[in-house]
Amino acid sequence: MSNDNVLQRLAEVVESRRGADPERSYVARLLARGEDAVLKKVGEEATEVVMAAKDGDRARIVAEMADLWFHCLVALAHYGLRPEDVFEELARREGLSGLDEKAARAHDARVDAERR
Amino acid sequence: MSNDNVLQRLAEVVESRRGADPERSYVARLLARGEDAVLKKVGEEATEVVMAAKDGDRARIVAEMADLWFHCLVALAHYGLRPEDVFEELARREGLSGLDEKAARAHDARVDAERR
Amino acid sequence: MSNDNVLQRLAEVVESRRGADPERSYVARLLARGEDAVLKKVGEEATEVVMAAKDGDRARIVAEMADLWFHCLVALAHYGLRPEDVFEELARREGLSGLDEKAARAHDARVDAERR
Amino acid sequence: MSNDNVLQRLAEVVESRRGADPERSYVARLLARGEDAVLKKVGEEATEVVMAAKDGDRARIVAEMADLWFHCLVALAHYGLRPEDVFEELARREGLSGLDEKAARAHDARVDAERR
Repeated sequence: MSNDNVLQRLAEVVESRRGADPERSYVARLLARGEDAVLKKVGEEATEVVMAAKDGDRARIVAEMADLWFHCLVALAHYGLRPEDVFEELARREGLSGLDEKAARAHDARVDAERR
Repeated sequence: MSNDNVLQRLAEVVESRRGADPERSYVARLLARGEDAVLKKVGEEATEVVMAAKDGDRARIVAEMADLWFHCLVALAHYGLRPEDVFEELARREGLSGLDEKAARAHDARVDAERR
Repeated sequence: MSNDNVLQRLAEVVESRRGADPERSYVARLLARGEDAVLKKVGEEATEVVMAAKDGDRARIVAEMADLWFHCLVALAHYGLRPEDVFEELARREGLSGLDEKAARAHDARVDAERR
Repeated sequence: MSNDNVLQRLAEVVESRRGADPERSYVARLLARGEDAVLKKVGEEATEVVMAAKDGDRARIVAEMADLWFHCLVALAHYGLRPEDVFEELARREGLSGLDEKAARAHDARVDAERR
């Protein structure tokens, strides 16, 4: 099985665990604890990525990034969203004008707003 | 063009901007500013996801998640890593025993360690 | 002038800048940009503390912690709160039973909740 | 007892728990788990502040800010630093030229660097 759509496959697993027995599923337990518990994990795992990166430990960067993306999928599921929604947004930006240039413009606009 | 591999396509764009003219590319500018600038964006965008989510604004959740994942790609590129590395790690966990059950065990082990 | 109450003095400065000319005051500019801008700085500065700490750079840890605490004061001000409110909460916990033991109990309760 | 120096008092408590029995002290347990565990709490509690603030729940903002500052004290202690070091830095900035103006200049310098 290709890894290309692993995020979509995992999103389906997450979706299937909604309402499952919290005793047997970490995802069911996390979703049952509600919005703040789910979002806290996103903040937590982002911090873990930063710490692994500062250690320059590439295997741990990959592992922590996997944790971060997994918990992003749980957060998306909490709001009835799927990774495909994020892919579409990324592709839309890419298609419009090149994501990089768009990011540059958005960034500069934000910087202008901050200065004003 | 399918959106399924948009993260891989964007990673290639990011890679191609390494060393490009910082005046013309946001990614080149960010990578040129170094590790801390790149990692700071990961922390920043995670906070933005949390804030959009607390507002319950689904369109903004998607947009901020896109920003977070995009900056994760830049961080991976900084360390010579690619989204495929993260996909492989996620697929490996999935293949071993079901990611959810694995996460549950890892979580419980961590909780035990915290209590001890 | 003693440094003991520098947080209170700074909170008064922050308060006095509310509504000041955004062109001339960083605090006025930040408060004028609203809740998300203020909170984003708390997340950002926390990430900066973590990165300085991972570098083991004690002077930068102090400088980034100063930035974090300063932006905490701005966030408190945004919600009409003062550092004294936080001191009172900390003293209350201390008075009740020793903050450390209380933290231990709260932590263990949370851990129990996570496991369940 | 005044609350004005509660951070200093708590820092002494934290210091006294270093090396204490991890079974009986949350702080001892946290310090024993090492740098990443300590720093992770700073990131975690910052996220909790943001979430409480987005809920506009002033009592919870105060409680989460107390948690954040307490874990900042633990992080400082891990690096042999004290809240007085941070107060001194804040007072130094205040004394130099008014912290607000300095922050404005530093911010604008950073923004210039980002644009370049």
